[in-house]
Amino acid sequence: MNLKGTDILTAAQFTRDQVEQLFSVADGLAARLQKGERLRTLDGKLLATVFYEPSTRTRLSFEAAMQRLGGGVLSVAEAKTASSVAKGETLPDTIRTIANYANAIVLRHPDVGAAQIAADAASIPILNAGDGAGEHPTQALLDLYTIRAEKKTIDGLRVALVGDLKNGRTVHSLARALSLFKVDFSLVAPAALSMPTEVSDYLRARDFIVEETNDLARTLQKADVVYMTRVQKERFADQKQYEKMKNFFILTSDLVKSAKENLLVMHPLPRIDEITTDVDTLPNAAYFRQAKNGVFIRMALLAEVFGN
Amino acid sequence: MNLKGTDILTAAQFTRDQVEQLFSVADGLAARLQKGERLRTLDGKLLATVFYEPSTRTRLSFEAAMQRLGGGVLSVAEAKTASSVAKGETLPDTIRTIANYANAIVLRHPDVGAAQIAADAASIPILNAGDGAGEHPTQALLDLYTIRAEKKTIDGLRVALVGDLKNGRTVHSLARALSLFKVDFSLVAPAALSMPTEVSDYLRARDFIVEETNDLARTLQKADVVYMTRVQKERFADQKQYEKMKNFFILTSDLVKSAKENLLVMHPLPRIDEITTDVDTLPNAAYFRQAKNGVFIRMALLAEVFGN
Amino acid sequence: MNLKGTDILTAAQFTRDQVEQLFSVADGLAARLQKGERLRTLDGKLLATVFYEPSTRTRLSFEAAMQRLGGGVLSVAEAKTASSVAKGETLPDTIRTIANYANAIVLRHPDVGAAQIAADAASIPILNAGDGAGEHPTQALLDLYTIRAEKKTIDGLRVALVGDLKNGRTVHSLARALSLFKVDFSLVAPAALSMPTEVSDYLRARDFIVEETNDLARTLQKADVVYMTRVQKERFADQKQYEKMKNFFILTSDLVKSAKENLLVMHPLPRIDEITTDVDTLPNAAYFRQAKNGVFIRMALLAEVFGN
Repeated sequence: MNLKGTDILTAAQFTRDQVEQLFSVADGLAARLQKGERLRTLDGKLLATVFYEPSTRTRLSFEAAMQRLGGGVLSVAEAKTASSVAKGETLPDTIRTIANYANAIVLRHPDVGAAQIAADAASIPILNAGDGAGEHPTQALLDLYTIRAEKKTIDGLRVALVGDLKNGRTVHSLARALSLFKVDFSLVAPAALSMPTEVSDYLRARDFIVEETNDLARTLQKADVVYMTRVQKERFADQKQYEKMKNFFILTSDLVKSAKENLLVMHPLPRIDEITTDVDTLPNAAYFRQAKNGVFIRMALLAEVFGN
Repeated sequence: MNLKGTDILTAAQFTRDQVEQLFSVADGLAARLQKGERLRTLDGKLLATVFYEPSTRTRLSFEAAMQRLGGGVLSVAEAKTASSVAKGETLPDTIRTIANYANAIVLRHPDVGAAQIAADAASIPILNAGDGAGEHPTQALLDLYTIRAEKKTIDGLRVALVGDLKNGRTVHSLARALSLFKVDFSLVAPAALSMPTEVSDYLRARDFIVEETNDLARTLQKADVVYMTRVQKERFADQKQYEKMKNFFILTSDLVKSAKENLLVMHPLPRIDEITTDVDTLPNAAYFRQAKNGVFIRMALLAEVFGN
Repeated sequence: MNLKGTDILTAAQFTRDQVEQLFSVADGLAARLQKGERLRTLDGKLLATVFYEPSTRTRLSFEAAMQRLGGGVLSVAEAKTASSVAKGETLPDTIRTIANYANAIVLRHPDVGAAQIAADAASIPILNAGDGAGEHPTQALLDLYTIRAEKKTIDGLRVALVGDLKNGRTVHSLARALSLFKVDFSLVAPAALSMPTEVSDYLRARDFIVEETNDLARTLQKADVVYMTRVQKERFADQKQYEKMKNFFILTSDLVKSAKENLLVMHPLPRIDEITTDVDTLPNAAYFRQAKNGVFIRMALLAEVFGN
């Protein structure tokens, strides 16, 4: 139950109790920060952020979380060009070495399973910050935490996941993480980009109501939360099909205003065109608040993993 | 008057009182550092340095200033290759996101006006660290502060700006900043690289004496401060013209020794050939001391913007 | 004797007393860290790590050492692409500028002698973190410290240096550093990659027993320490010769088990194929512990150079 010393590899590893404990720790830390308190929980600890793919957003979010707790950071923004990797060093050797410098490692890597390989090699906790098309568990946690922060509860909501459900690791992790709560799912995607059956079967086997559709406007009549993702033009063989599909999946302020009241609009960012900028000023738009919640939930996770 | 929470976008935004207040704060901070005091004014605060163009000098200067005040840093040395930018995220979206991680953002960007765009998007202060051929206000502040530190006063001095006055954002910002004081100007440039009339008209409209010349040696007979900049070979269509011009604009130790007594020699750096290295050991050479003053004035600015 | 304010440029600059003093300081710091004590010896000090060649290992090791002592870091992971260097700024100018931001500079540069050039320019201590095929003195210190930590003594041991002894700056520095102690040397290399006579003559002139051989298995019957390095395929004109030679220089667990008891296995890392991974789990394998020792010895060095 206790996360002390644990690797964070997949959204599927958490129990509901653990997730709720993280929410509660995050709430407490956020409140203390907002009162202007200087936290020193991780004073003297070092977190290495090792990014084989650049990701300013996730790297800075972890580095902010660590420093807000009083800890220090060792930053490798471009691990791929590092000389030891260029000379042919294996990932386990790199990780075993860095494990001698830091107290925990945040790893972003293009290969599915890289975080597990790192965890097997390291004597210190590994936090998976995205392993290719695999998992991105702290993104799922911050998404859950945002729904809870904005809606006060997750149970009883209908959540619409929209866009490229086939290729997005974010929605795969989030769907599994949401299954810890009592929610209904609307999966809104063109047939060519529908949720992998592996994920939708996972939900149905657990008795969730899972609706699959490509009608965004109708879905928004009943959804409490809409989680937009980018429709990836480059995945379409037929560009006419893309042009047709993408029109269903642009969220405008008009659409939000005609949707169910208090619709919560989320997006993992970066956003390209799938949410028009006139939505940004609506109270419904939570996607930049998501980024702030990411710092709080990662603070909670670091505090728990370091055992403070 | 108070700079708390203010964006720092242009050298033109400061009043003389504000500039003198910054000098006074910088003096105080420098004195406390030199006594070996450990400052904790910005303990618990985070400064993000977001550089779309690499600039080790300006980035490290801000990061040193922040850490000397006890604050922490989130560093993006190569924002252009960051994945969210590569995926097509807009500058306002990137800034809005990072604004959730840090308490202020230092931005270097290749486009004129980028700092203003960022300031419009962000809920936290933006400090312009250079926006293309636009402004670089903290460079102008450190230049003023250096003249004041070395000469005890700025009023009453004759300042010669030398070199490529057409293309250098540094001299544009500095000329405007100097207009807060009672100085005489010598603008020393080949005709092809003379100061834009926009800037020289600005000075003349305020009743400043502005001499334009291309005779460096004669100017140095009366100037108190010479601010050298690089003549940019690539701007000349006619290379013979370049060869002829650049000879007027190489400052040697012989030239310094035959100049007015106590001539102050400045340069924004990097220096290529326009100041020979035999000048470096003369007491007149202030260009490396400028770099040190940059840390002190940026400390003062950060302390004021954060409101401490 | 005292290292306060000293540049660290070559392994040859240390006396035996200085090295033993560093060991003793490193032991003390390591013990305090292991008890969970938070060190603040370098609170308020800034270390700039300026890497013209990427080296995650060495950079992070120094940055960890500095932060473990309570100091701060200014990090330039890719100095070569920095704008001032791209514009043609000389190394002395770059160093003189950064010397105004930090209290000491760690420099990695591709050119032999670069650290000396930097030291001549800077008013603050320069720590050489590798200058081309020249020196890497802190690597030699951490190697000595590891032998001492693992074997309790260095005097009286037989040390086998194995692999590409011609091109490896690590073994050149280590051989000279070992000459402060009473050791016997086995230099194990193919003829084409044998130790430069400059180094072997240095040892023989000081009355050391120096055996040169290419028989690894026989050497391991009597060696107390084996220091493996990579045989660099690209140096061989004749690939058949390479294939033949590299087989002598792959250390397997079978070889370790048939060697002299308690053989200490070291490697500067990154390791490619010259030590098989089945050696990793043997107690003899010290190469990842070397990385940890690197942090301790660099902490000691920083503490001494800063004079605390």
